[in-house]
Amino acid sequence: MRGKTARFGVIKYTSGGWNMSKIRLTIEYDGTGYAGWQVQPDAVTIQEVIEDALGKMTGEKVRLAAAGRTDAGVHALGQVAAFSTRSSHSPGVFLRALNSMLPRDIRISEAIEVEEGFHPRYDARSKRYIYLIDLSEVQSPFLYRYAWHLPCSFDISAIKEASRCLLGRHDFSSFRGSGCGAKSPVRTIISFDVGVIENPVFLGLSLRGRLLRIGIEGDAFLRHMVRNIVGTLVEIGRGKIAPGEMSGIMKGADRSLAGPTAPARGLFLERIEY
Amino acid sequence: MRGKTARFGVIKYTSGGWNMSKIRLTIEYDGTGYAGWQVQPDAVTIQEVIEDALGKMTGEKVRLAAAGRTDAGVHALGQVAAFSTRSSHSPGVFLRALNSMLPRDIRISEAIEVEEGFHPRYDARSKRYIYLIDLSEVQSPFLYRYAWHLPCSFDISAIKEASRCLLGRHDFSSFRGSGCGAKSPVRTIISFDVGVIENPVFLGLSLRGRLLRIGIEGDAFLRHMVRNIVGTLVEIGRGKIAPGEMSGIMKGADRSLAGPTAPARGLFLERIEY
Repeated sequence: MRGKTARFGVIKYTSGGWNMSKIRLTIEYDGTGYAGWQVQPDAVTIQEVIEDALGKMTGEKVRLAAAGRTDAGVHALGQVAAFSTRSSHSPGVFLRALNSMLPRDIRISEAIEVEEGFHPRYDARSKRYIYLIDLSEVQSPFLYRYAWHLPCSFDISAIKEASRCLLGRHDFSSFRGSGCGAKSPVRTIISFDVGVIENPVFLGLSLRGRLLRIGIEGDAFLRHMVRNIVGTLVEIGRGKIAPGEMSGIMKGADRSLAGPTAPARGLFLERIEY
Repeated sequence: MRGKTARFGVIKYTSGGWNMSKIRLTIEYDGTGYAGWQVQPDAVTIQEVIEDALGKMTGEKVRLAAAGRTDAGVHALGQVAAFSTRSSHSPGVFLRALNSMLPRDIRISEAIEVEEGFHPRYDARSKRYIYLIDLSEVQSPFLYRYAWHLPCSFDISAIKEASRCLLGRHDFSSFRGSGCGAKSPVRTIISFDVGVIENPVFLGLSLRGRLLRIGIEGDAFLRHMVRNIVGTLVEIGRGKIAPGEMSGIMKGADRSLAGPTAPARGLFLERIEY
């Protein structure tokens, strides 16, 4: 094995370096059929499916690093991931070849060459997520993959009131999922918005019903942080927690003070800014 | 057997008639996972799934008659079907019980009691279909179930020009699919519209891309008629047939003159008027 490694090393340097290039992909996916982004045993993940396609294209064992490791069932309109390769294919060739190999619920919308030092997660300035809650009595068959169905009365002004204290730099321990590997629980929420969409437009068609749309942008997020914030705001909207308690929940820095985790299916990673 | 039938008949009349009631359902479905509306052997159909649920609810062998027998993969926002039952459940009970039993890609949006003589197909004054064509180079993962992906240049004004001759009462034999059981090929197109949607809105989210949206309303439709009209208009949009030829294609009353059948996945039965 050592000999092999050494021979490998010789090739590397006599050829004047690997001529590695780094490619950044913007990825869209319907997460319904996947066990989330990150590779795991005995489950199909988005990372694995794209790495397999890259492996077929390049003959290399390609490793993709993503900006956000989305959970099973979470969707993305603008996930960003990057990989290094010795292949001389242009980004445009990667884009077309990957889209011809990938299943139709995963698409590469952009591929560009970036600096070798680029990292999708560490270099991200902000991420924006959208969460959809369906307040209709009967959920449209076009919505069940994309929205949490809560056919109940909802105090939206209470949600708006409670959400004000989320803005800014805070310790988000109360919304931190177990198993979160982040060193610090401090994050900055840059913007937060809530709106109701009556008869939501679905590709030019008007659906029955009423959607609550929550948008949240931050410098970074802890594990399950968006879903835990949404789960808590839903308790507030349903009158189970008073809006004035939100500030105390945050200051308590204790997960047991906040509400349950909202389902993954309503969550979209909308975009990442660099 | 005869005895049984007679006994059955006795019950019928001594009880003062069956007390049959007729219930009209408005049905929404994502047709992706189904072999269309109509019951057929060795395939899961929407009619069968709803009839099975009705059978469980009522203990009867319930037969559903629909306004439109949509093909495999076709979606509906406003399919209408009706059934007769001896059950005394109210329409509201049918609505809630069916929605609790049906898979989430089929929903009953309305249930009302109607006259015994009501027939969803024969009593329909008009039906409106929508067809979506995705002109984006890379198809969004949220669109592939719902739009025909045609990443090519498209002359929309040619489609508009050609579609003018569709309006009114005509022999639509050139757009009649094989196996069509209609007695007459004459139908009336009440309205036709074509529009382009840039960055289509999907439940409050803005997707990449460009959709062509075709709306067509008629008194009734022959088998595959909408998909055959769309397939022909696409040939016109791509410059393979001149827009001026549309009138001759119709007058020829010959299926071989027109373009191919557009895929089912882009088609939605939007609504039915009575």
